[in-house]
Amino acid sequence: MENFTFRNATKIIFGKDAENYVGTETARYGSKVLLHYGGGSIKNYGLYDRVLKSLKDAGLEIIELGGVQSNPRLSMVKKGIDICRKEKVDFILAVGGGSVIDSAKAIAAGVTYNGDVWDFYTRKAVPEKIIPLGVVLTIPAAGSETSGASVITKEEGSYKRAFESEMLRPKFAILNPEISYTLPPYQTACGVSDIMAHVMERYFTRVQNVDLTDRLCEATLETVIGNTPLVLKKPNSYQARAEIMWAGTIAHNDLLGTGRIGDWASHGIEHELSGIYDIAHGAGLSIIFPAWMKYVYKQDVERFAQFAVRVWNVEADFKNVEKVAFKGIKRLEEFYKKIGLPITLKEANIPYDRLEEMAEKCTEGGPRGNFVRLDKNDVLEILMLAR
Amino acid sequence: MENFTFRNATKIIFGKDAENYVGTETARYGSKVLLHYGGGSIKNYGLYDRVLKSLKDAGLEIIELGGVQSNPRLSMVKKGIDICRKEKVDFILAVGGGSVIDSAKAIAAGVTYNGDVWDFYTRKAVPEKIIPLGVVLTIPAAGSETSGASVITKEEGSYKRAFESEMLRPKFAILNPEISYTLPPYQTACGVSDIMAHVMERYFTRVQNVDLTDRLCEATLETVIGNTPLVLKKPNSYQARAEIMWAGTIAHNDLLGTGRIGDWASHGIEHELSGIYDIAHGAGLSIIFPAWMKYVYKQDVERFAQFAVRVWNVEADFKNVEKVAFKGIKRLEEFYKKIGLPITLKEANIPYDRLEEMAEKCTEGGPRGNFVRLDKNDVLEILMLAR
Repeated sequence: MENFTFRNATKIIFGKDAENYVGTETARYGSKVLLHYGGGSIKNYGLYDRVLKSLKDAGLEIIELGGVQSNPRLSMVKKGIDICRKEKVDFILAVGGGSVIDSAKAIAAGVTYNGDVWDFYTRKAVPEKIIPLGVVLTIPAAGSETSGASVITKEEGSYKRAFESEMLRPKFAILNPEISYTLPPYQTACGVSDIMAHVMERYFTRVQNVDLTDRLCEATLETVIGNTPLVLKKPNSYQARAEIMWAGTIAHNDLLGTGRIGDWASHGIEHELSGIYDIAHGAGLSIIFPAWMKYVYKQDVERFAQFAVRVWNVEADFKNVEKVAFKGIKRLEEFYKKIGLPITLKEANIPYDRLEEMAEKCTEGGPRGNFVRLDKNDVLEILMLAR
Repeated sequence: MENFTFRNATKIIFGKDAENYVGTETARYGSKVLLHYGGGSIKNYGLYDRVLKSLKDAGLEIIELGGVQSNPRLSMVKKGIDICRKEKVDFILAVGGGSVIDSAKAIAAGVTYNGDVWDFYTRKAVPEKIIPLGVVLTIPAAGSETSGASVITKEEGSYKRAFESEMLRPKFAILNPEISYTLPPYQTACGVSDIMAHVMERYFTRVQNVDLTDRLCEATLETVIGNTPLVLKKPNSYQARAEIMWAGTIAHNDLLGTGRIGDWASHGIEHELSGIYDIAHGAGLSIIFPAWMKYVYKQDVERFAQFAVRVWNVEADFKNVEKVAFKGIKRLEEFYKKIGLPITLKEANIPYDRLEEMAEKCTEGGPRGNFVRLDKNDVLEILMLAR
């Protein structure tokens, strides 16, 4: 186990009608709120009205900025920063999934920064102070509701980049599983894929003797794997939706990574995919992760075998560890397929003509991944395996 | 799953030499520190010198109050409150295990309260403001390093009572597994028993559909069960000590109880035992928990069977669920015995002449437990089963 520091102070308010607390929670931190959201789904469900009522009941002034797209854009972030400065906004409320939250985080960090907010994403600067933000979550997936990370796409050059800071953790996250009832099956499955990826990025580590966090990771994966078919069959199952929503937060609040060094190459490669092709992040991950696994599993075949046995109930066979390991990867692929996700570039209608460009961009800041360090050629090989 | 609110903002600093951060962390909150500790072990290990150096290097003024006993006493708390008021202490640093931390919490809450600090423990008052506190942990057991709970014994009448408040959570907890190397086997085992009890109190719930937290509980128990024999065999095993120390915190930081209603009757009954006989809390729990299980398992035999199969690797036998359930309880007892803990009152040399008095005191505030509500007679039955 590695030395670590862990603190996650985001207040979770979880359950039915939890969104009705948004006004009182927000009023602890600000008086003039930027209400940030995406497309129309927030309005369809009636969530918009309830959030607005709660904010107004708490005496808050509200400025709205809707229209965040998936793979959230830098141009929207800049628009948000301008509005916040002009209107002297002192709190940002994200009502949405990871894209909206990540956009809100970027705005929160950018408002008080004199330079270009993109500097944070290119490591040219680190934020010294940010505006506080809160979340009403609509899509269990990104885990951004308690994480200290934000991923933004710069349209010019199709760069999708992440930045992390403890300051980015929201003050509160409101999680009502009922809000996820109306998520279509494909979007639900993409969310599940993202949740699982957050766990697997941490699970595949070279750090030895990480029993507790291994088991917590396995527990989270098993829960998601068990509840996803229930949710797809019965979208209004409160219990199954609740399991997936809470798992989505646990998967990415950094607890599961304590004492470990995560890999994160698959996320890096996927960002190139969705940066260019605007494919859903979860669908990109279901393509990249199995290919990555096939390329790297020999680094620690026993860890992959443990994954197969403990998470996928592959029968333990200690005379054929590699076979066991490979069965685990196969089960993961079968699971992705079963829930309607692509596992090849072909299935996602992604052409093969820009693989080298993606490998190049992915590694332009240096090799990727910690489980195995991947250079441009390695990334290209993985993309070829994903065809 | 039940609705819940969860926030645990304690900053964890975990790993080798972590105590060297105590000065800079403390200096964030105060300038005059009450250094609170127990017996001589803190000095033997050299920890005292390192903590003192770190505090002094950070420019802090230090007032010392050592001598906290296990089952910490109200008289010591009052002494600490007097000192803090007189010396205008603005931060309390607990260096020790659960007893020292609980004593520090009581002092922190009492300093700013005009009445008797015992009022918090009898529910006559709730604290409005407390002095901030921090922890350097020496014994993985109580989980008090991130919990919002404190348990104090009032000598007059031998009352051992708990009180909870979100305010009681320490600002930081410094966890260096090396510090636990010198813990004797019996104290190590008692700590393990306490850790397991914190998980089991949450695990045995009547709330249905709690997959994720079930599995997180099981993961924590399996880790502790697997690493305890290693630690007893090789007290200086950093890796095994680290697993147990981190598990001890996770077990009681409230994450594992999210969406559930825990039971806590066994803790209540044990408090009567250790309130009168001054037995180690963990040893009291290894006596009470199996007896409690035998008395209540019929309430949800399937849950007990799940516990047996998933935690204790009892073979699943769906035609004989009760048998499976009972085997799990037996395995728990065998584990306690293996690590040197008593599983009967007799083994702990506790006479049977005050069982009724304990049952009476335990339930004087009303029935105990949520998995099964226990009145005085139920508690007496459990104590009889524990003979």
